[in-house]
Amino acid sequence: MSACVMSGLAHLFGILSFILILVWLLHFREGIDYASVNPFRVFNVHPLMMFLSLIFLAGEAIMAFQTVPAQRHIKKFFHMALHLIAIVLGIVGLCAVFKFHDMLHIPHLYSLHGWIGILTLCSYGLQWVFGLVTFLVPGAQDATRARVLPWHKIGGKVLFLMAICAAETGLMEKAGFLSLKAHQTETSLVTFTGLSILLFGAFVFVSIGIR
Amino acid sequence: MSACVMSGLAHLFGILSFILILVWLLHFREGIDYASVNPFRVFNVHPLMMFLSLIFLAGEAIMAFQTVPAQRHIKKFFHMALHLIAIVLGIVGLCAVFKFHDMLHIPHLYSLHGWIGILTLCSYGLQWVFGLVTFLVPGAQDATRARVLPWHKIGGKVLFLMAICAAETGLMEKAGFLSLKAHQTETSLVTFTGLSILLFGAFVFVSIGIR
Ligand code: HEM
Ligand code: HEM
Repeated sequence: MSACVMSGLAHLFGILSFILILVWLLHFREGIDYASVNPFRVFNVHPLMMFLSLIFLAGEAIMAFQTVPAQRHIKKFFHMALHLIAIVLGIVGLCAVFKFHDMLHIPHLYSLHGWIGILTLCSYGLQWVFGLVTFLVPGAQDATRARVLPWHKIGGKVLFLMAICAAETGLMEKAGFLSLKAHQTETSLVTFTGLSILLFGAFVFVSIGIR
Repeated sequence: MSACVMSGLAHLFGILSFILILVWLLHFREGIDYASVNPFRVFNVHPLMMFLSLIFLAGEAIMAFQTVPAQRHIKKFFHMALHLIAIVLGIVGLCAVFKFHDMLHIPHLYSLHGWIGILTLCSYGLQWVFGLVTFLVPGAQDATRARVLPWHKIGGKVLFLMAICAAETGLMEKAGFLSLKAHQTETSLVTFTGLSILLFGAFVFVSIGIR
């Protein structure tokens, strides 16, 4: 029961965060367009895609074993597939920020956020491949699975924690570039977005921890 | 065995982070002094104390049940006491940033970092009080303890995750105020500090998850 309430709250804060990010990028910022000549519209693909992928879809994938009402092998397929979509969208989001940097001749990977981000995305890809071959195709022997599973679980939790840190540091970095001031509407919006993402993460953790 | 290796790695990255923060604040920044007339020396008490308290001591307290080689009630006492010291130092660190703001007439609590931080510290205090009365003095009945324990554990993990986010966003905020540029030594130092704190957090999680 309580796991249900907790994953319900997670969905809620996930959707809230998504709406807040859209309001921010579409209303306060320049809009979202990967093919634009305006580098800032290209950049805005980055926060949207990174949130959708490594935060929202990853969180939903983590909760899939509880939230998908089906047999275990269907749950497992959803878990794998959501993470796969996350990786694809994550790569699109990463390309957007690289394209933005190239358009404005800004160097790559100079900030704490950038390094946390790239470390997270690469390890996330590795964890996915590792999980696929161990648990799905071809799948390892039962004894191996049992030995690997706790590492897969804790690895997944740590990666999700890193993704939350990546999102929060990304918001801070952008707020810094924009020199957002106290008591400006956009400052509060960015703060609420960050807190909403944090609560999403917290409820994902609680809903898988309490079962 | 593997839990030992993991908590060993956690201690290592904890101490590394501590050294990096000291090098940063003492060599690249203005130094550390709560009673100084230079507001930046007062501010520097904040990152040092927050790291020591909600990150380092909290992480060590979380691992205490595995790392303290003693009977269970001694382990439990260490767990409680480390968290208590963390709360006291955390309050000192928070007062430092409030004092800094007052010295320069900067408003309070306007940033995502500030809100994550205050939310974390307050909830941390509540979790401590709640844990104390349930598990130590006076201590609840066995059935209640058993019912509360999973919530205490998951609550503690979420709070630790929030503290890591607070530290990473704090580093980003300061890097933004300082307008640190790519390929500047201090930028790399801040990046390494943030990554080292993240790895400390990761190994704390792994060492309590894998047992
Ligand atoms: C899981 C989430 C995220 C990941 C994995 C991630 C990853 C990255 C990476 C790897 C870079 C470095 C690219 C380069 O140096 O060329 C970067 C840059 C950046 N990201 Fe993110 N990011 C995430 C979320 C966000 C969010 C939510 C924002 C909010 C606005 C954001 C804002 C930025 C900014 C401002 C930059 C630097 C762009 C510049 O230098 O002008 N990121 N990100
Ligand atoms: C667990 C760790 C931390 C917590 C709980 C925390 C908490 C807070 C809080 C509540 C504030 C708001 C104070 C106010 O608005 O008056 C704040 C401000 C701030 N903190 Fe932290 N903090 C942490 C770690 C750090 C670290 C590691 C740094 C790195 C330098 C940092 C840098 C800052 C900065 C730059 C400000 C804003 C000061 C200003 O506006 O000039 N914090 N922190």
